[in-house]
Amino acid sequence: MNIGFIGLGGMGRGIAANLLRAGHRVQVWNRSPGPVDELVALGAERAAGVIDVLQNDVLFSILADDLALRSVLLDGEPLRSAKAGLIHINLATVSVRFAAELAALHASLGQGYVAAPVFGRVDVAAAGKLNIIAAGATATLDTVQPLLDVIGQKTWRVGDEPTRANAVKIGGNFMIAAAIEAMAEASTLADAHGVEPAQFLEILTSTLFAAPVYQGYGKLIAEQRYAPAGFALRLGLKDVRLALEAGDASNVPMPFASVLRDGFLDAVAQGDGDLDWGALAKVAARRANR
Amino acid sequence: MNIGFIGLGGMGRGIAANLLRAGHRVQVWNRSPGPVDELVALGAERAAGVIDVLQNDVLFSILADDLALRSVLLDGEPLRSAKAGLIHINLATVSVRFAAELAALHASLGQGYVAAPVFGRVDVAAAGKLNIIAAGATATLDTVQPLLDVIGQKTWRVGDEPTRANAVKIGGNFMIAAAIEAMAEASTLADAHGVEPAQFLEILTSTLFAAPVYQGYGKLIAEQRYAPAGFALRLGLKDVRLALEAGDASNVPMPFASVLRDGFLDAVAQGDGDLDWGALAKVAARRANR
Amino acid sequence: MNIGFIGLGGMGRGIAANLLRAGHRVQVWNRSPGPVDELVALGAERAAGVIDVLQNDVLFSILADDLALRSVLLDGEPLRSAKAGLIHINLATVSVRFAAELAALHASLGQGYVAAPVFGRVDVAAAGKLNIIAAGATATLDTVQPLLDVIGQKTWRVGDEPTRANAVKIGGNFMIAAAIEAMAEASTLADAHGVEPAQFLEILTSTLFAAPVYQGYGKLIAEQRYAPAGFALRLGLKDVRLALEAGDASNVPMPFASVLRDGFLDAVAQGDGDLDWGALAKVAARRANR
Amino acid sequence: MNIGFIGLGGMGRGIAANLLRAGHRVQVWNRSPGPVDELVALGAERAAGVIDVLQNDVLFSILADDLALRSVLLDGEPLRSAKAGLIHINLATVSVRFAAELAALHASLGQGYVAAPVFGRVDVAAAGKLNIIAAGATATLDTVQPLLDVIGQKTWRVGDEPTRANAVKIGGNFMIAAAIEAMAEASTLADAHGVEPAQFLEILTSTLFAAPVYQGYGKLIAEQRYAPAGFALRLGLKDVRLALEAGDASNVPMPFASVLRDGFLDAVAQGDGDLDWGALAKVAARRANR
Repeated sequence: MNIGFIGLGGMGRGIAANLLRAGHRVQVWNRSPGPVDELVALGAERAAGVIDVLQNDVLFSILADDLALRSVLLDGEPLRSAKAGLIHINLATVSVRFAAELAALHASLGQGYVAAPVFGRVDVAAAGKLNIIAAGATATLDTVQPLLDVIGQKTWRVGDEPTRANAVKIGGNFMIAAAIEAMAEASTLADAHGVEPAQFLEILTSTLFAAPVYQGYGKLIAEQRYAPAGFALRLGLKDVRLALEAGDASNVPMPFASVLRDGFLDAVAQGDGDLDWGALAKVAARRANR
Repeated sequence: MNIGFIGLGGMGRGIAANLLRAGHRVQVWNRSPGPVDELVALGAERAAGVIDVLQNDVLFSILADDLALRSVLLDGEPLRSAKAGLIHINLATVSVRFAAELAALHASLGQGYVAAPVFGRVDVAAAGKLNIIAAGATATLDTVQPLLDVIGQKTWRVGDEPTRANAVKIGGNFMIAAAIEAMAEASTLADAHGVEPAQFLEILTSTLFAAPVYQGYGKLIAEQRYAPAGFALRLGLKDVRLALEAGDASNVPMPFASVLRDGFLDAVAQGDGDLDWGALAKVAARRANR
Repeated sequence: MNIGFIGLGGMGRGIAANLLRAGHRVQVWNRSPGPVDELVALGAERAAGVIDVLQNDVLFSILADDLALRSVLLDGEPLRSAKAGLIHINLATVSVRFAAELAALHASLGQGYVAAPVFGRVDVAAAGKLNIIAAGATATLDTVQPLLDVIGQKTWRVGDEPTRANAVKIGGNFMIAAAIEAMAEASTLADAHGVEPAQFLEILTSTLFAAPVYQGYGKLIAEQRYAPAGFALRLGLKDVRLALEAGDASNVPMPFASVLRDGFLDAVAQGDGDLDWGALAKVAARRANR
Repeated sequence: MNIGFIGLGGMGRGIAANLLRAGHRVQVWNRSPGPVDELVALGAERAAGVIDVLQNDVLFSILADDLALRSVLLDGEPLRSAKAGLIHINLATVSVRFAAELAALHASLGQGYVAAPVFGRVDVAAAGKLNIIAAGATATLDTVQPLLDVIGQKTWRVGDEPTRANAVKIGGNFMIAAAIEAMAEASTLADAHGVEPAQFLEILTSTLFAAPVYQGYGKLIAEQRYAPAGFALRLGLKDVRLALEAGDASNVPMPFASVLRDGFLDAVAQGDGDLDWGALAKVAARRANR
């Protein structure tokens, strides 16, 4: 299968490189040319434009948000000129609403659509160890499974309705943000009672909370090391918005998500939007004047 | 060292049995006689009353809340009749304020006080695998360390101010409750978008959240199996109150704890106070009418 | 000045009738024909279509939400065929973002745009006693002021940037919702302590809170009389969303608005979306099992 | 009837003066002597001590919080030496729990107890225009009604269970705090969209919210004039705690009260505890970095 690839940010570069390394022919396109050169050096082909990259059997895309993907793939309707039977694998965290719109659009054009958002940061992507949440028609998923096996350690299939995969990803990112906030509040409380946040977090993350999320962000909070950002706070805010939107669309109140949204807005208002989203802990500390 | 032991609930029975098993002389007292008989059968001595059990070198206590301990150990001032130099090891989750009061009282009587709240449920206590958060004078801690080694897998010393241990325990329990609520909201969201809560929770707790707390409560929520309670919801409410009180006393806003409090109150109002505190997930589901 | 009028719901009918009564020539258009007949009987002219109604000097519009106005006035670009120099007075509560888009669009076509959302329900509109929050170019406002004087008791000018008027209206509606929630929580508390909500609310709304909003909604809550709806709960949810969006766009955390959103979602999930938004009080009562 | 009076703060001085002015014999006691001299100059008698002031037919008390009243009236059990049949009228905002304790204690001593918390600030007290919320046995209330008529413009009787009056007062103070927060969030939102808070608040408080609470605090917020405090922020925090406690005791979730508590704690943490509680608006502004 010939592969087209759109979106060569930190995540995309590692994923595309893994596809190349596995022997696939990969044609790449990116808004800025730098990353394209980098992938070409690894053996990728340079696409002349969006319509060019759509002439492959499979299209991977991983862009920052709904808007970015919309402007690349929907404005001007380039999908009408895609190769017949194209399968689009969208690795990005997009809204449930946009996932539904994309699925319907591809179906109307006789194309396949697989929602395949991933858990894992840049280093995990580079190592081919992502956890992939995939949803789409079974036959389509079966077709692309060998490609997913190249880029991830495991594919979790959650049904044929693409929106389901996005709901899982959005729910998972919400849970990460909630874990950060819980550590933030608890370690501020500990601090106010004479216990070093670092010691408090070490105890908890070595025992009941001995999981990657807690250990990773616990360390960041303990060391107050929020730059460079592994995942920028303003992207965290975006993902909490996606959770609230998804809840709103289905009448699911999410009080924790609301608290998170207000905390992220506070952080952005103070100029911390480009820090790692672990910097949510600064908000809890500031409110306690610590 | 002769040991006195007050409080033979599920946790206390396992802990006292471990002390006996390690060859210590243990004298037990409990409000209701049944558990006393059980421990006597294992080799414990029966104390005639509270003053009797205070004639040992070390006193362990593990009672349900501040009020229970206050009525046993403070009303009528039995501590004035305790053996000289008694060391009191309090394993219970009490308020920061009460811990400070107890520490001052024991000091005024020339007695030692160790705050040693524990993480772990009944089965962990029975297996001697508790995580113990300990605070008190170093010499006193050194004296009782061999006993703590019998009942726990690790003792985390957090300083000489007893209140610190309580702040850590309270912060930790708050984090558990927050994890339950995060799973509750996220799995309700997933459910509303066509993903089985069981599948959603399995994905998350096998990967980013592969920690005991998430796996244990994730399973409970997935199976909606809240009885019999491992830890009763009304005790969870008590612990969230302790977090809010500790925050209030030191000007630490805790918005997540407030959300938890309101959720627990809602659950208790609907008659679910005796279920496991994982039943907090019923509140999220009910509010979404799912 | 010849007047076009779009949107003959409960509010629009009363406002258009007042313009007719004041001697103006009013041409009306509405998606459903019934209300058009009613206004024609009062002396209005029937517009053949949207482009027809745009051939007047001034266009009033009052539609339910952003989407409705967008589909009528933007889809198919009818504004390009409007009378030169048309002034559009938008009485509806639209989002700050959409207000900015509309203002820019009209300016680009050489047309005037006045944001003029109103406070007041159907009976107030019929009596010509609305409070109008108006923003737009001063000269444009001066031109239409005589018309605004016909439909309202007072016009509050808040500057030349149309979005400002929408921010005021959205902030005001948020305050009404907050007043409802405050009464809901407080009267549930009173009830739980043996005080009839009706008595509690009478005391407060006769004294410190002797204002129309509190007296009106206090009575509704006391009598639990939520149908027929004066203002439907699902429209209240829409307005709280507008407040949250406006806050999000400018980094303003709004914790009260988040609580309101979750309460409204809960109510809609239980099937109460068509009740009056005073029915938010049912949520507080249900959570306390009263 | 001879009257004893305890608590000569700003409120108490005005109330006691009104009783004197109406021709009653009033014996006063206060922890600090200054205010006593002031009242004696107006014709009051100086009590030698607490037991002395309890030798009257009626005792008014108005102290800052539960603790203050407990230390004066319960420690050392002076009530056992009070005049037979004493009626205690407690004008202060105390907790529901303490009100119940006091009522039971007085009953056990054959004394009457009237819970009579008041709405109104210092100037209202001085003018004899308080709104009094009263609960107690009907006969007892009838006996003291002439005295209540002297100090207030209206007495609202809410039943024979004294706690009811406290629930009403606590619910009312919560509603005031909620009104402040609603104005704070909304005017911050307006400000962020180019509308002066002063203009925004003038519009709302002249129309839908034309009530004393909104006009008074709206003006404070518009002018950012928080000192000297009419009612100190830390007392506002105390009253929100009372609401949360009362809700907790009867399983009533109060999400608005939780938001308020966290906002007040934030303000106190930043050193604003002695400002007027209208300064809650500083918290909303700070979180939006405005």
